[in-house]
Amino acid sequence: MGKVYLVGAGPGAPDLLTLRALRLLERADIVFHDALIDSTVLGLAAHAELIAVGKRHGRHSARQPIINRQLVEAARTHDLVVRLKGGDPMIFGRAQEEIDALREAGVEIEVVPGVTAASAASAALQVSLTCRGVSRNLVFATPRVGESEGASDWAAPLASAHTAAIYMAAHEAAQITAQLQALGRAPDTPVVLVENATLAQQRVWTGTLARLHESASLGLVGPALILVGEVFRGLAGAD
Amino acid sequence: MGKVYLVGAGPGAPDLLTLRALRLLERADIVFHDALIDSTVLGLAAHAELIAVGKRHGRHSARQPIINRQLVEAARTHDLVVRLKGGDPMIFGRAQEEIDALREAGVEIEVVPGVTAASAASAALQVSLTCRGVSRNLVFATPRVGESEGASDWAAPLASAHTAAIYMAAHEAAQITAQLQALGRAPDTPVVLVENATLAQQRVWTGTLARLHESASLGLVGPALILVGEVFRGLAGAD
Repeated sequence: MGKVYLVGAGPGAPDLLTLRALRLLERADIVFHDALIDSTVLGLAAHAELIAVGKRHGRHSARQPIINRQLVEAARTHDLVVRLKGGDPMIFGRAQEEIDALREAGVEIEVVPGVTAASAASAALQVSLTCRGVSRNLVFATPRVGESEGASDWAAPLASAHTAAIYMAAHEAAQITAQLQALGRAPDTPVVLVENATLAQQRVWTGTLARLHESASLGLVGPALILVGEVFRGLAGAD
Repeated sequence: MGKVYLVGAGPGAPDLLTLRALRLLERADIVFHDALIDSTVLGLAAHAELIAVGKRHGRHSARQPIINRQLVEAARTHDLVVRLKGGDPMIFGRAQEEIDALREAGVEIEVVPGVTAASAASAALQVSLTCRGVSRNLVFATPRVGESEGASDWAAPLASAHTAAIYMAAHEAAQITAQLQALGRAPDTPVVLVENATLAQQRVWTGTLARLHESASLGLVGPALILVGEVFRGLAGAD
């Protein structure tokens, strides 16, 4: 029986992989990867069979049981199995479902953390997510729901968040603005949208909560993160 | 005039450094590092002068202006300056104060994100911070305040957080329990304390909000993170 490593690939740029992730990819026999992992990163798995599964942030929930079965089966026939996920596996990465399925099948697992998108976007913007006297907390949330979930309570902590990072936010501008305004956030709250953080195709939109719908003009194609809070007030368009 | 890189060293284990951080350390002329960075990581900066500044999460706020001046001065006399911070520079890393000071002095900067402690602790526990149907948001907060700050509003989003990661939590058990209970969190809310996440000296305490004070028996000496939420209910002691 082999071992399965759930590995964070980081936010996109190949050199934001951890050394531990690199060494596992180099030794891997088989790699199951999200669809949006950079080809340079996949190329590091020189000896591995590569299998693309699902979208980066796992919007195809129907496919999850299939992926779980593939991982268990791979552990029976390969020594070193890598499940490579965008960002950090444990933050909006659907890792728990795979961990539970592998444990139930008696497969040994290890999780390798990665750099999450909010850290990468913050670094690219050169604006810290926390800041003495301005932001002493940080909320990660997503409006994306699985088929079996309600859409109600994802946003509640955003009412009092000093800084917020909203994941899987592409094409959700209207819902996000409505939810945050319903929670009492001011229309002029600074908002930054970052698409493809750390990649060459990175794009940044800055504005306010009330104007967030204008970000649709970007015609988003890549994964997008929306950052909210006073720490971003100094950026263009949010003064 | 040199360039200053604010670099995340990750949660502790040397191989959780990113490739970008490794390459910068190898080329650095001078490295200003937090006191708790692993000596193996510092050893990667083979050609650099090493200067220890402050504690890992910067509790010595009085020293911040001195560090800012040291960085500006170093950029005037060295080509490649690294400011190495535990975890991710932009999450409770005091990065903004250094970014602002360097910008004001006309010094070119770049921020390199790192793996934050919550991701590392989650990986070590093999419990995902978010989980379909259980946790769709995640709050990072800290009870640590600077000398000039009030102690009031750090905790508000914890009232409705599905999962929370409380940074710089060592010796703050009483305050954390009081705040979370005042916000309406149930006494039996699962709580996990992780000291020295990812290092050989890692220790884990599991329990509930009402019993968090018992974690004092660990006699904490390293940095500690407190994790809160239903995703941890399956761990021993929180059933």
